[in-house]
Amino acid sequence: MTQNPTGSTPASPVQIGLDEIFNSHLGGKLSVTVDRPLETKRDLSIAYTPGVAQVSRAIAQDVTAAEDYTWSSRLVAVISDGSAVLGLGNIGAKASLPVMEGKSALFKKFAGLNSIPIVLDTGDVDEMIETIIRIAPTFGAVNLEDISAPRCFEIEDRLIEALDMPVMHDDQHGTAVVTLAALKNAAKVVGKDLADLRIVITGAGAAGVAVTRILLAAGVTDIIITDSRGIIYEGRDAVTGKKLELAKVTNPRGLTGGTGEALEGADVFIGVSAAKIPEEEVAAMADGAIVFALSNPDPEILPEVAARHAKVVATGRSDFPNQINNVLAFPGIFRGALDADAKKITEAMKLAAADAIADLVGDQLAADYIVPSALDPRVGPAVAAAVAAAVTE
Amino acid sequence: MTQNPTGSTPASPVQIGLDEIFNSHLGGKLSVTVDRPLETKRDLSIAYTPGVAQVSRAIAQDVTAAEDYTWSSRLVAVISDGSAVLGLGNIGAKASLPVMEGKSALFKKFAGLNSIPIVLDTGDVDEMIETIIRIAPTFGAVNLEDISAPRCFEIEDRLIEALDMPVMHDDQHGTAVVTLAALKNAAKVVGKDLADLRIVITGAGAAGVAVTRILLAAGVTDIIITDSRGIIYEGRDAVTGKKLELAKVTNPRGLTGGTGEALEGADVFIGVSAAKIPEEEVAAMADGAIVFALSNPDPEILPEVAARHAKVVATGRSDFPNQINNVLAFPGIFRGALDADAKKITEAMKLAAADAIADLVGDQLAADYIVPSALDPRVGPAVAAAVAAAVTE
Repeated sequence: MTQNPTGSTPASPVQIGLDEIFNSHLGGKLSVTVDRPLETKRDLSIAYTPGVAQVSRAIAQDVTAAEDYTWSSRLVAVISDGSAVLGLGNIGAKASLPVMEGKSALFKKFAGLNSIPIVLDTGDVDEMIETIIRIAPTFGAVNLEDISAPRCFEIEDRLIEALDMPVMHDDQHGTAVVTLAALKNAAKVVGKDLADLRIVITGAGAAGVAVTRILLAAGVTDIIITDSRGIIYEGRDAVTGKKLELAKVTNPRGLTGGTGEALEGADVFIGVSAAKIPEEEVAAMADGAIVFALSNPDPEILPEVAARHAKVVATGRSDFPNQINNVLAFPGIFRGALDADAKKITEAMKLAAADAIADLVGDQLAADYIVPSALDPRVGPAVAAAVAAAVTE
Repeated sequence: MTQNPTGSTPASPVQIGLDEIFNSHLGGKLSVTVDRPLETKRDLSIAYTPGVAQVSRAIAQDVTAAEDYTWSSRLVAVISDGSAVLGLGNIGAKASLPVMEGKSALFKKFAGLNSIPIVLDTGDVDEMIETIIRIAPTFGAVNLEDISAPRCFEIEDRLIEALDMPVMHDDQHGTAVVTLAALKNAAKVVGKDLADLRIVITGAGAAGVAVTRILLAAGVTDIIITDSRGIIYEGRDAVTGKKLELAKVTNPRGLTGGTGEALEGADVFIGVSAAKIPEEEVAAMADGAIVFALSNPDPEILPEVAARHAKVVATGRSDFPNQINNVLAFPGIFRGALDADAKKITEAMKLAAADAIADLVGDQLAADYIVPSALDPRVGPAVAAAVAAAVTE
């Protein structure tokens, strides 16, 4: 029951017994509650027949009335096919549900948004897209979750185009926003300008692509991306699709080779794949190096090892300082988008979210405090306000 | 905003101001609540990463673990395409949402079941079915709602076949169960045997078909059904599909004509269409007549008029005695089916539900009290227990 179907056994960074974890999931983590009284015939006549017919009729005449008189306009669907769940890989729709319930719970906790998990019993791109479009009147925004690359790119792109509501694949953009926020503060700690940083990103999956894009949008110019075959460049084997797009806008110094070549003299390492990085490669980075070893639960390099050579170290784990956790971003991003009635989540909104997260650190900025805690109650509202202010539609 | 897009203006049987109705719908009627603490890093590590991965892994290995460790196995999806909403007709997915939210609220209130509305932006039968199948891992049961006939029959039949979970179109079977419960008690009031009743049903839509089927299953033998062209019989114009199936098992005396011919000497009138019935036709029924004028909000004949000639009168409205209200049936039916881990809702389970509803009236049985109140808190649990006991799988 607790064996890993993928064969590996990820370390459990926080020591919590399996019994406690499973007991805490009994019956699931969410409930639906009713916000109106249903005690009298009169209550029923208002919330249900015949009164509800007046509301339905109003929406039939003017569909925008649904924004005020249903829960749908502020309801976030957390949608997955279970194809890239945490470190577990393609475990399918049903097995992804506990994660999606958790995500919905975080939306409520950190942004006050209602959210329901929807898991899809299909991994076909066209089928996934058409299914989500068909059920779209049910909700007001789509948080795509744990969908494997490269499928996730096409699915997100086409849904953004098709749906008149905020759509975001959190594994891409949530990670990217928090990484940018952390990097802005880390650059301050080491006294370097963000725009001047030489950055190496290992992993060209969902997170790697989005991190690259947001860094470029934030003014970074020297990014090298590696995948399992080494540095990505135009003309290299297996550089097609999104990787080809990335190859055209990265690696300005035309490097070839592996992570060793890429990291030599680099200012920043950002790991968003499971590949391990040897200590000597980190040792070869520039002075004042920044290491974000974000793979979860096993970082690309252990923080205590990285810290021998880097000035700032961050991971995705809650048991080390500087946790790069998507929960800092997605609740506030969706809340801000919905508050401002945005139909898309733009690059400007993501950049505003990153700034808001970075700014909350304020005077407490230090090598071991470059992002707020995932539990900091200021984050959701601050991100929401910044994102809403960045809506220009 | 409050004008009727269909042109007619249904009477509002309960005098409630539009302002109060619309204010009561502001923001919708449902919320998602989180059942686990998310206050500490430890809480997050249990409900979300890394702890949740243990639960997902367990489900990936044995999908039945999802029954215990997610909310899905006891979550009812209330699914509609908005094609036959209350008296409003085909108003579309978004406009149907307030009704579906109300339905989900009733599931919680009367059966303690979590329920989410899902509305479909397609009316194509194949697309609806494949969409519901694709999102099915999300929930544990399907309450189809307000889907127009004859599409509703095929959709329900195919989903029952395809899905390994309870599926029921409430407009059919909820109505049928409560009608049978009421008729059992009405027959006692007038001192007639259920099996001997001559019954006329106007309307061969979703409710008419299901009411006919459950009455036949309960032992009634003399049923005449009419549609807008009059009595349905084999060989008549436009008697195909479900109507042809019904023609083969009804109208044993081979009547032709309209409701006038059908009602002459009949014991029971059950109206489940919007068609009006003139007083003189009710006057021509047998002594001790039973009139169920269930069209909502405008009954086929006003109860005070029917009462001049009938001994027992019921409607679908809450402001008259004997309200035939689906809410007496569906919460308990789904609760019982899920409690007993049933994969289908069988005829035996529906008959058990009808008996449970009828039995709750007990010694208080009277011409104006043939079914419990929709608000009677005993109903949901009693129906659930009876339905669960009738599960034989």
